[in-house]
Amino acid sequence: MTKPQMIIPTYDDMLCAHERIKPHIRRTPVRTSDYLNEITGAQLFFKCENFQEPGAFKVRGATNAVFGLSAAQAEKGVATHSSGNHASCLSYAAMLRGIPCNVVMPRTAPQAKKDTVRRYGGRITECAPSTSSREQTFALVQQETGGDFVHPYNDPRVIAGQGTCSKEFIEQTDGLDMVVAPIGGGGMISGTCLTLSTLAPECHVIAAEPEQADDAFRSFKAGHIIADDAPKTIADGLLVPLKDLTWHFVSNHVSEIYTASDDEIIDAMKLTWKHLRVVMEPSSAVPLAIVLKNPDAFRGKRIGIVITGGNVDLDSLPWLA
Amino acid sequence: MTKPQMIIPTYDDMLCAHERIKPHIRRTPVRTSDYLNEITGAQLFFKCENFQEPGAFKVRGATNAVFGLSAAQAEKGVATHSSGNHASCLSYAAMLRGIPCNVVMPRTAPQAKKDTVRRYGGRITECAPSTSSREQTFALVQQETGGDFVHPYNDPRVIAGQGTCSKEFIEQTDGLDMVVAPIGGGGMISGTCLTLSTLAPECHVIAAEPEQADDAFRSFKAGHIIADDAPKTIADGLLVPLKDLTWHFVSNHVSEIYTASDDEIIDAMKLTWKHLRVVMEPSSAVPLAIVLKNPDAFRGKRIGIVITGGNVDLDSLPWLA
Repeated sequence: MTKPQMIIPTYDDMLCAHERIKPHIRRTPVRTSDYLNEITGAQLFFKCENFQEPGAFKVRGATNAVFGLSAAQAEKGVATHSSGNHASCLSYAAMLRGIPCNVVMPRTAPQAKKDTVRRYGGRITECAPSTSSREQTFALVQQETGGDFVHPYNDPRVIAGQGTCSKEFIEQTDGLDMVVAPIGGGGMISGTCLTLSTLAPECHVIAAEPEQADDAFRSFKAGHIIADDAPKTIADGLLVPLKDLTWHFVSNHVSEIYTASDDEIIDAMKLTWKHLRVVMEPSSAVPLAIVLKNPDAFRGKRIGIVITGGNVDLDSLPWLA
Repeated sequence: MTKPQMIIPTYDDMLCAHERIKPHIRRTPVRTSDYLNEITGAQLFFKCENFQEPGAFKVRGATNAVFGLSAAQAEKGVATHSSGNHASCLSYAAMLRGIPCNVVMPRTAPQAKKDTVRRYGGRITECAPSTSSREQTFALVQQETGGDFVHPYNDPRVIAGQGTCSKEFIEQTDGLDMVVAPIGGGGMISGTCLTLSTLAPECHVIAAEPEQADDAFRSFKAGHIIADDAPKTIADGLLVPLKDLTWHFVSNHVSEIYTASDDEIIDAMKLTWKHLRVVMEPSSAVPLAIVLKNPDAFRGKRIGIVITGGNVDLDSLPWLA
C-alpha cells in the first residue's frame, strides 16, 4: 500500500530530469581495467560519478530538484540537512541557479565538508549531533527561510535525477547484465531501479552494503524497513536508513543485497585507486568488494559499477591508518 | 646538422603510428575542473594518459615499436633498459603481440616496478645501479637474445607513438592555445612538437621540469644538451637527460621551459587528486605546478595538460612524508 503523500517518480520523470540537468552535470566517462577483469573473472565497467564537479552522483538529483522549482519558490531557495555529499551538491546546484541554499549540519561535521558547502555559497546552520536537535533546527530554518526541503534521497525529484546515471551507463556500454551500486538511504539504487526496470528490465540491480551498516540487507530479508541506531563503518556515505520511497524501489526491483566488511572495503578501495587510477570514497568501493567476495555470483557477467563519489580526506587514507 | 644515423620521425609516421596502435591503446578521456580553472584563471584540459591500461602514455610509443616489427624481428622480441614506465609499457606491448621482452633494471629498483614488468611477462636482468653496469649488462642481454632495442625516448618509433596523444587531444578539445607536458628525456614533448607543428602550428608547446632536475631548462637556454650527473627530485619519471633526437624537437619547436620546486610539485599533485579525483604521479603534476607559479603566462588561455602517468606507491604519498 502506498501512503497517500508518497509520489513515485516515473520513467518519464527520469527522462525529463535528464533533459533538465544535462547542461549542469557531466556525462561522466566509463572506465575499465583488464587487471580488475582478470582477478574477478567478470567484465567490469565503472561509471565515474566521482568526476562530477562537486565529486558525487548526488549532483544529478540536486540539480533536478533545483532547476525544477517554480520562479516563486526559487526565490526562497532550498534547504536540507546533511553532512555529506548531498549538502555540497545541493549548494552547488543552488549556486548554478543563483538561489539560496540552507544546510543544517551537526557542529561536529568535518571542517572540509563545511568548507565545501560554503565554497558553493551554501549557508550552514549548526545543530547538536543528534536527530532531535537536527529536526528542531531544521524546522526553524525552514520556517525562517521558506526554503524548499530537498531530502537527500527520499524525494521523487532526487530519485528521478539519480536515475539519469544508469540511462547514460546503458548507452555507454551497449548493455549490462547487472548494475551494482552502494546502498545507504537508497537514492542511487532507487534511481537505478526506476530507469532499468523500463530501459533494460533484463539487467539485474544489485545493492552493496557495509556489513557494519547492513540495515538495508536486513530490511530486504525481513520484508520491511529496519533502521539502525548508530551504525559505524568506514563507508561514511552509507550510514542512513531506507525511507518509504526508496524502500518501494528496493523491495520491488532489487535482485540481491550483498555485504562486505570494512577491511574488504578498504582493500577494494586501494585496488581501484591503484588499477583504475581514480580517487574514490570508501562508500564507492563496496560494489567491487562484494564482487571480489562472491565470485560465483558475478563470474562471466557484464557488470556496471557506479563509483558514487570521490570526496576523500587525502591526509588520512584508511589503508594508512 | 643532423647526424647521419638520426632518423627524424615525420607527421605521416605519427599518423601511421596512430592507425597501428589504436586497437591496443585507449583513447583516454579529457577532464576539466571548474575549481582549477577558477584558481588559475585559465581553461585547463587534462588528458588522462594515466588511464592507459599500464598507467602511462609510454604505451603509445611502446606499442608502435612492437607492432611495427617485422615477423622475423618479432620472434626475437624487444629489449630495453628502464626502471620506470617504459619498462612496464614495453613489456605490456610485447605481451599483447606475444613476443619476448627483456628489461635491464638496476637491482635497487622498487619491487613494485619489477612486479609490474613480470606481471606483463617481461624478463628482468638485474644490473648494478650505475651507467657502466647497465650498458655492459644490456649489451650482453641484447647479444644473447637479439631483441630489438627500444629506447625509452630517443627512438623515432617511440616519438611518433607519443605524438598520437596530442592528435587526440586536439580532436577532443576543438583546439588549444598551448599544450604543457612534463619533460625528462623529452619523448612526450618531442611527440607533441611533431604533431602540433603540423596539425596546430599556432598551439605553443611548453615543457615543465622539476627545478631539481632542470637539465632541459639549462640546455634550452644554452643552446646545446647539458646532462646532469645524478639529479634528485620527487618527480622520479623525469631524471633522464635529453638525447639528440629529442633535442632536435625541443630546440626547434618548444616555446618555453618552466621549472617548479618539489614542494610546488607536491602541492599541485595533491590539488589534482582532490579536485580532478585522478591518481597521478609526481612527474605529472609539474605542468599544473608551473601554471600556478606563472599566472601571467597562462591566464585566459586554453591549456592542454598531459597527465603522463598514474603509477604511484599508495603506501608512501609525498604529502604524508
